Amino acid sequence: MKLLRFGDAGQEKPGMLDAAGAVRDLSGEISDITGETITRVGLEKLRALDPEALPLVPDPGRIGSCLARVPNFFCIGLNYAKHAAETNAKEPEEPIIFSKATSALSGPNDDVAIPRGSEKSDWEVELGIVIGARTSYVSEADALDHVAGYCTINDVSERAFQIERGGQWMKGKSARTFGPIGPWLVTADEVPDPQKLKLWLKLNGETVQSSETSDMIFGAAEIVSYLSQFMVLMPGDVIATGTPEGVGMGMKPQRFLKPGDVMEVEVEGLGGQRQEVVAES
Amino acid sequence: MKLLRFGDAGQEKPGMLDAAGAVRDLSGEISDITGETITRVGLEKLRALDPEALPLVPDPGRIGSCLARVPNFFCIGLNYAKHAAETNAKEPEEPIIFSKATSALSGPNDDVAIPRGSEKSDWEVELGIVIGARTSYVSEADALDHVAGYCTINDVSERAFQIERGGQWMKGKSARTFGPIGPWLVTADEVPDPQKLKLWLKLNGETVQSSETSDMIFGAAEIVSYLSQFMVLMPGDVIATGTPEGVGMGMKPQRFLKPGDVMEVEVEGLGGQRQEVVAES
Repeated sequence: MKLLRFGDAGQEKPGMLDAAGAVRDLSGEISDITGETITRVGLEKLRALDPEALPLVPDPGRIGSCLARVPNFFCIGLNYAKHAAETNAKEPEEPIIFSKATSALSGPNDDVAIPRGSEKSDWEVELGIVIGARTSYVSEADALDHVAGYCTINDVSERAFQIERGGQWMKGKSARTFGPIGPWLVTADEVPDPQKLKLWLKLNGETVQSSETSDMIFGAAEIVSYLSQFMVLMPGDVIATGTPEGVGMGMKPQRFLKPGDVMEVEVEGLGGQRQEVVAES
Repeated sequence: MKLLRFGDAGQEKPGMLDAAGAVRDLSGEISDITGETITRVGLEKLRALDPEALPLVPDPGRIGSCLARVPNFFCIGLNYAKHAAETNAKEPEEPIIFSKATSALSGPNDDVAIPRGSEKSDWEVELGIVIGARTSYVSEADALDHVAGYCTINDVSERAFQIERGGQWMKGKSARTFGPIGPWLVTADEVPDPQKLKLWLKLNGETVQSSETSDMIFGAAEIVSYLSQFMVLMPGDVIATGTPEGVGMGMKPQRFLKPGDVMEVEVEGLGGQRQEVVAES
């Protein structure tokens, strides 16, 4: 299934795609797409529905973040070897965990706002994992059973805030609009191997990131298992799994976002995003 | 007002203290204590109630975390000069921001579980700020208008996970039971000056931390204003504002939690906590 949320920000309705790719309204069945509705039981209920019997939404308008009430927006740092190299960082020996504020979540095609005082806003296409079950001390072998699905993420980052303002990366990862996710939450049954997905990002039409999740240092199963040794993962938690090479910070000369730029962001099979860059008001 | 949640974990009811300090059941008025119920409008509705007219709860049993559905559990690092010194860290020039997983939240008197593989679990009494309004780019002068209230926090920390396992502190801050908050959310009107509160922590009856929030490097207003430059704060966000000196990591020799230990944790006027330490199952 491909689940989505459509409508004005803060007033989104839940929906799903039908076989023809059209949006069907799920608001008669569930109130929203949240951790509660994407558990194993929740997804079984949705899977039992006949999409063609749901109300067709001829013009869904804006697409929102594919998930609401996210308990945690986790990120894995430096998880592609060439990206670690381009940022002059050592390849990590075990996953680096940090987080974005959940208020950074936004729709896949919403404007990305450069925060006040920012001169180093940057892009990062990433595979997103969405957790579907309470997960604690899970083995790598069982880890993917706890995954509800996957989504495209642009882990927008302000490098000066992240690195030059006194420790801990979340300071540069959490601004409003810095977390476009979606367009869809694609359920795990439609992603036979999360380590075989191409992902890319175009800036003003030019491909600046182009890689495959096979290049991840720590794969999806290892990430979920690893995280679950340090904290309890909850249904609806989102994990951004790291970005491949090609970010602006790694370019020579460095290149950062400016108003008017357009980012197109996609992970194979998970749907594309398009964001215009604006100045924060 | 002193708001609280009582009952078995996951099934807590909302409540408030009456003038005599007894628990009154709020579940006929609101479904839970969340960001939605502690906005300015939400608190006005609660303030309009006559506590004595609410059902008395003669035996509230377990007290839960004083807030549910927390969007973010932020922390400020090294915010007391003597604590920075005892951990051999420089006093920060601007606030250090990181977070705990929201699944770390627990009741004030729940057991604290030492995670599997942990040898360096440590204590940290802290003043907690609870946000009551959407807050973005707020001035220091206006910042406290966006605060719903305050609570006692034990920011339990695993030092090896935090420092020795490859960057970013949240890895050592997020285990199950590592975030006891409460017993109460004390509304801001009852805390005339958040920088004049004594706070202390006793380990097995011995006072190991004893300080005052006047010693904070960055005060509550500065913290809220500063955070809001980097991210949008949301109603229900919790901010742990840093711990004073006296943590186990700073002792010579170092001293860490072991099963059977008892922590008593209190911030003046915000209520006391008592946790027994157990091994994670």
